[in-house]
Amino acid sequence: MRELQAYIRKEGQVLSEQVLKVNSFLNHQVDPDLIMNIGKTIAERYQDAGITKIVTIEASGIHIAFAAALSLGVPFVYAKKSKAITQSNEVHAASVYSFTRQQTYQITISKEFLNSDDKVLIVDDILAEGAGVRGLREIMEEAGCELIAVSVVIEKSFQNGRKMLDDAGIPVYALARIASMSPEKGIEFITEETIKGDM
Amino acid sequence: MRELQAYIRKEGQVLSEQVLKVNSFLNHQVDPDLIMNIGKTIAERYQDAGITKIVTIEASGIHIAFAAALSLGVPFVYAKKSKAITQSNEVHAASVYSFTRQQTYQITISKEFLNSDDKVLIVDDILAEGAGVRGLREIMEEAGCELIAVSVVIEKSFQNGRKMLDDAGIPVYALARIASMSPEKGIEFITEETIKGDM
Repeated sequence: MRELQAYIRKEGQVLSEQVLKVNSFLNHQVDPDLIMNIGKTIAERYQDAGITKIVTIEASGIHIAFAAALSLGVPFVYAKKSKAITQSNEVHAASVYSFTRQQTYQITISKEFLNSDDKVLIVDDILAEGAGVRGLREIMEEAGCELIAVSVVIEKSFQNGRKMLDDAGIPVYALARIASMSPEKGIEFITEETIKGDM
Repeated sequence: MRELQAYIRKEGQVLSEQVLKVNSFLNHQVDPDLIMNIGKTIAERYQDAGITKIVTIEASGIHIAFAAALSLGVPFVYAKKSKAITQSNEVHAASVYSFTRQQTYQITISKEFLNSDDKVLIVDDILAEGAGVRGLREIMEEAGCELIAVSVVIEKSFQNGRKMLDDAGIPVYALARIASMSPEKGIEFITEETIKGDM
């Protein structure tokens, strides 16, 4: 998605070789037109895959999951990060370590919203170490549903999440793939040409 | 919104006179078509109000804010509930007590995303005691921006949030207003006829 790459170059702040701040359009302030286009692009890719449900984690995956779910015509579920009084004990749960926040938290999905007939597309804002996706996979294994693919807005390809999913044989669709970045040199994207072999 | 009232009657679970569970379509699993219709309805109401930004709190307000922002053609910002490494210290902050989770947390919005020119519409899923809205109002006062109105999907009119906003002279647009509820008697809505006087 050229529009997205342009956005990332213009608005993204490379704070270090690991940390990219994209909170002016993706995960704090949000440009709804851009996100809707991203949702449509994800939905086009998976329109014939038999997806029954999109799954994400609160909070920064929600609007992206919504845009994709609206375009695909399926419901979405967001895993919750802490157990509220209004939630029943009948939940699937997994522990997730957040590298950004440097803490472990629990994610839960009510058992009633995932079942063994579901074909799931996981959607999220950023794929880095893949900790969130790992937690969701645990939950899906418990629920007995099928994970069709993982789709993210930005993949930091130099971190471990992509490799983990490749090794597990799970298709990944990232709308922008970052090969490397630094405050001095900026962002180097993996272009379509570069990845022709593995698409 | 008749469609919404029907949804709440069909899908909502009244756990007590205070607690309504709507997590099958609103705040855990989400029906994207319903939420998009809600967003359009909110946007129609405020299309001539000069809104420059929609503001909500993560997580359960995000998809509703997104749908309204997309329809209104403005960006939205979601207040974050904890301070991540990738967020600068330049934030507006407020403390919020969650009655559902029975704990106090901090909400923050980066100063760069709210300024004194902004005319803000707050959007959220449920208005109960109004603690979240109170926190957002504190942040907006710090930022010097103008709060035009508060719009929520469901208002529990028997709790204190609505009265607090009425007393402060802030317009509230709730798509479904619940006068009272109990597991035995179900839900009693405030109908349009009943509230003709104060619309």
